[in-house]
Amino acid sequence: MSVKVLTIKEDLLGANQEKADKNHKLLDKHHNFMINIMSSPGAGKTSLIMQTIKRLKDKIRIAVIEGDIASTIDADKISKQDIPVIQINTAGACHLDANMIENAIDKLSLEQTDLVVIENVGNLVCPAEFAVGAHKNIMLLSVPEGDDKPHKYPLMFTEADVVLVNKIDVLPYFDFDVNAFSDAVSGLNPSARIFPVSAKTGEGLEVWFSWLEDALK
Amino acid sequence: MSVKVLTIKEDLLGANQEKADKNHKLLDKHHNFMINIMSSPGAGKTSLIMQTIKRLKDKIRIAVIEGDIASTIDADKISKQDIPVIQINTAGACHLDANMIENAIDKLSLEQTDLVVIENVGNLVCPAEFAVGAHKNIMLLSVPEGDDKPHKYPLMFTEADVVLVNKIDVLPYFDFDVNAFSDAVSGLNPSARIFPVSAKTGEGLEVWFSWLEDALK
Repeated sequence: MSVKVLTIKEDLLGANQEKADKNHKLLDKHHNFMINIMSSPGAGKTSLIMQTIKRLKDKIRIAVIEGDIASTIDADKISKQDIPVIQINTAGACHLDANMIENAIDKLSLEQTDLVVIENVGNLVCPAEFAVGAHKNIMLLSVPEGDDKPHKYPLMFTEADVVLVNKIDVLPYFDFDVNAFSDAVSGLNPSARIFPVSAKTGEGLEVWFSWLEDALK
Repeated sequence: MSVKVLTIKEDLLGANQEKADKNHKLLDKHHNFMINIMSSPGAGKTSLIMQTIKRLKDKIRIAVIEGDIASTIDADKISKQDIPVIQINTAGACHLDANMIENAIDKLSLEQTDLVVIENVGNLVCPAEFAVGAHKNIMLLSVPEGDDKPHKYPLMFTEADVVLVNKIDVLPYFDFDVNAFSDAVSGLNPSARIFPVSAKTGEGLEVWFSWLEDALK
């Protein structure tokens, strides 16, 4: 039975990759750059996006696609920044897929947009398996989650182009070894950029903003 | 295509439930009690299990089933407590299922065990969909994850018999409203027990230990 399930999954992933490639081409055609932000629940994706919008919205035209199993809590927060937000409710599914993103992109004015930011469903496993057509994968790992996570959830760290170590403002209250964490990430993915930040206090975020501005050039 | 996938999923879940019921009956036959502990990555499942073993192992014969996508980090920690530990590596899958638990139970000496503790894969979504045959579902939500999670991941909170609010030792450093969180959980699941604890400092754990001892009677 496990072999049967695997075949179904492979078919699904193959079809998903084709759709992701289509999304990617459409974005390139309209000179849009798309990032796919992934993390565990509560690691700080929405806070990072809010900070990024505040810092860059006068220079870069940003639109956000919000993925949640239920609720519009995050989309409501972000729409107050007066930028376009598309909410996707996955109705139970543990990740976004390329089809959902195709439908969301279709609702955006790509000619009026430079950067499309996807906030994926909070999950350190499934989102990494499903390409959506993004130019770069960004992941957050927050200090309270622990520095052993690259060993336990390797695929997410392998797929990430940038790993943001978030909530460094609470480092004194947790046993988290930033160097051990960085070594573990580099062991899985030598080219990943690693930026320690606090989306709450703003510490370290200038490095992230610079990376993003350079990536859009 | 989405309908096709849904059908496959329903077939899978039906077959899984049958196997879960079989596991449950086998445990009842041998007077074993099984709990299924679920949470996001890094919420404190392993720390809770370690504290529970230390406090109760002289009264209750405990065995642990460790579910991870990769690595044996948690199983290695727990095996130092000199109790039986079975490691399941899911090779990418985002949750344990009843079939994996059947194989793990088969390796335990049920006649020498009172309590089987399952540490599920760290994930606030998928594990809640797959019954494993446990007598009670236990979930942890840690303070750094935020008090809005019941709205965003409702199924997990609906399926839980006990919700442990972990890491209350860091409440001063996070915007987490325990009352708002408890109200949200009760709104989804009025019979869920909610225990604020710190698996690190031990605060609040006596209520959990008492609940568990009573449940085993």
